[in-house]
Amino acid sequence: MSETSLIFPAAEFRARTERLQAQMAADGLNALLLTSAADVFYTTGFLTRFWESPARPWFIVIPAKGDPVAVIPSIGADLMQKTWIRTIRTWDAPDPRDDGITLLTETLAGLVPAGGRIGLPMGLETHLRMPLGDYQTLTTCLANRTFVDATACVHRVREIKSAAEIEKIRAICAIAGRAYARVPEFARKGRTHAEVFRDFQIALLAEGADWVSYVAGGADQDGYGDVISPAADQPLIEGDILMFDTGAVKDGYFCDYDRNYSVGPASSVARHAQEALWQATESTIATLRPGMRASDVHRLLTEGLARHGATASGGRLGHGLGITLTEWPSFTPLDSTPLRAGMVLTLEPGCYTRDGRILVHEENILLHEDRVELLSPRAPQHLPELDA
Amino acid sequence: MSETSLIFPAAEFRARTERLQAQMAADGLNALLLTSAADVFYTTGFLTRFWESPARPWFIVIPAKGDPVAVIPSIGADLMQKTWIRTIRTWDAPDPRDDGITLLTETLAGLVPAGGRIGLPMGLETHLRMPLGDYQTLTTCLANRTFVDATACVHRVREIKSAAEIEKIRAICAIAGRAYARVPEFARKGRTHAEVFRDFQIALLAEGADWVSYVAGGADQDGYGDVISPAADQPLIEGDILMFDTGAVKDGYFCDYDRNYSVGPASSVARHAQEALWQATESTIATLRPGMRASDVHRLLTEGLARHGATASGGRLGHGLGITLTEWPSFTPLDSTPLRAGMVLTLEPGCYTRDGRILVHEENILLHEDRVELLSPRAPQHLPELDA
Repeated sequence: MSETSLIFPAAEFRARTERLQAQMAADGLNALLLTSAADVFYTTGFLTRFWESPARPWFIVIPAKGDPVAVIPSIGADLMQKTWIRTIRTWDAPDPRDDGITLLTETLAGLVPAGGRIGLPMGLETHLRMPLGDYQTLTTCLANRTFVDATACVHRVREIKSAAEIEKIRAICAIAGRAYARVPEFARKGRTHAEVFRDFQIALLAEGADWVSYVAGGADQDGYGDVISPAADQPLIEGDILMFDTGAVKDGYFCDYDRNYSVGPASSVARHAQEALWQATESTIATLRPGMRASDVHRLLTEGLARHGATASGGRLGHGLGITLTEWPSFTPLDSTPLRAGMVLTLEPGCYTRDGRILVHEENILLHEDRVELLSPRAPQHLPELDA
Repeated sequence: MSETSLIFPAAEFRARTERLQAQMAADGLNALLLTSAADVFYTTGFLTRFWESPARPWFIVIPAKGDPVAVIPSIGADLMQKTWIRTIRTWDAPDPRDDGITLLTETLAGLVPAGGRIGLPMGLETHLRMPLGDYQTLTTCLANRTFVDATACVHRVREIKSAAEIEKIRAICAIAGRAYARVPEFARKGRTHAEVFRDFQIALLAEGADWVSYVAGGADQDGYGDVISPAADQPLIEGDILMFDTGAVKDGYFCDYDRNYSVGPASSVARHAQEALWQATESTIATLRPGMRASDVHRLLTEGLARHGATASGGRLGHGLGITLTEWPSFTPLDSTPLRAGMVLTLEPGCYTRDGRILVHEENILLHEDRVELLSPRAPQHLPELDA
């Protein structure tokens, strides 16, 4: 009987651990200390929405050799035992005297020799999900070990998706695609933003999402001011461009792409922006290859927009995707991360329409050696029209 | 015209700031540095699901006197301008060279004199939501200021809810109550856990939740093994006790309570556990008053269960509630936090049924000077029966 775990067979997690350990060896790390929901899920398969509660820290230690060790609150023992992890140490959290720090210190001391190096992610796009005071206690208790940044170690491994991971992202992209196709059923002139946001989340669930971690959007004349607001109580009116963006989740994997709709006929300024966004994405898909850097994608999209008379909006124009809504790298002029086959990415060009308003377009893609594969169903070239 | 902000009038946020500043003065703090979604929302009204993206840090600085200062990624400027915050400093994030740290250093240096103290939450149930390496850079740049733990400062203020906050929690509790009442419409023998979890989330949205940040539960014969798992693909069978637990959100405020259902007639062991949980909650509601400590609630619930022949399950038996799924204090034997009028809390007794299985019961309450008010509609005394 093959070993099983949650979400994937144990072999998937074993392969991930071995890739991390190879990178750790190259970086001179004796252990990796992981605290975030994503890193814990990535290495164990432990999937729960309970991370929503900030009450308890959770720790996974990856030794230089051998299987990961879980040091977790006892409330999670039952679920962790369903994963491939066999060494599970628990304490009753939250404990105001010692919230797992003695147990974690003993675990690390047993796996890392004096003078050894313990890596944890400390860099861009990372957080330490444990109380800062407890981290300071831990470093004091293990003063003869060195704590160093392991952001690159984790990122270089996680950013290349396995075939099993790609199937999960493909599945949630398809679910979102069916929900987007149903938007004209419930979004029309007169309904409030709040109503259509709610119905969009219901459509995502009805089409098969396990849960909806992220929905944002906007609606205003010829474009919207920002792309991160929750819904307002105002009604859709003719001439609005309605945008939904979602990070829905299936088996712990995210999609992240948006779609735009015009309430009644689109104005020429909105149609022009849509055409520029669609064409810039099209030409980037045709050109993007491994060996380029993240900054090259920003350039390709910006130049593509310019060729169609549009000006790119500020900020990044896409990013990595997988087990969080957004992953590194970032498509900005400053990010020099090399792009490699197996990366799942979003292309997210935005451009100005008028008065500081923007239109944003987004697709999810998989980078192959010789081509770009769309994981999201390609957005229509022309803005779909909602009843006005 | 009165000042407005998002979610509440500006006066609400001004009062919160003044309460924080009074506590800061008592604790000898020259500024407070806040990084978490909850603390940023609490002080500004800035509400977005964009926190789901780990890409960017967000900073709010509360000076000893005067209004808060936002130091945030430019992608959030439009939304922050809709709040009562007038000083908004932005940078283009993510920036691998300097992700807001120079801007934050300048802001803190301008508000805190040399030798001054900057507080930030470092204690139990807190995280620093920014890269650890950037925090280390910040403390180096401001080496002539001291960074100290401000967990108690923030907790003592946030744990007392205003009338406006209580109305928000009351509203989402009522929404969840209507969704729980609809469970017999879609949960019955033969439907899979995944199907009914999905339908429950749809019911929460349909009844008025803005979004559903948390749904967990379980279903097994006479009780369930854990309370944090996502749904499995197995069908409900006769004799299962189905439990749903949800943290649904309206205007940024959470409910957090569960409900149990029996698939077909409940066994005597399940009926006995339900009766003990219901009675222990009833007697605790009758007895709990300000002046008690968090540990007293654990004792009241444990003793109440024992009087009805049941043994309390491990872990905490309730906690605070508000703008995250769970807030401090924790109803454990170790938490000595004094309970005060204005606290919103959950009573969450659990007890063993058989073979390590448990039943968990939960209500949301508001502590008054002279009584406990239920915010969740009281659970039925006897287990509701689903079609089998």
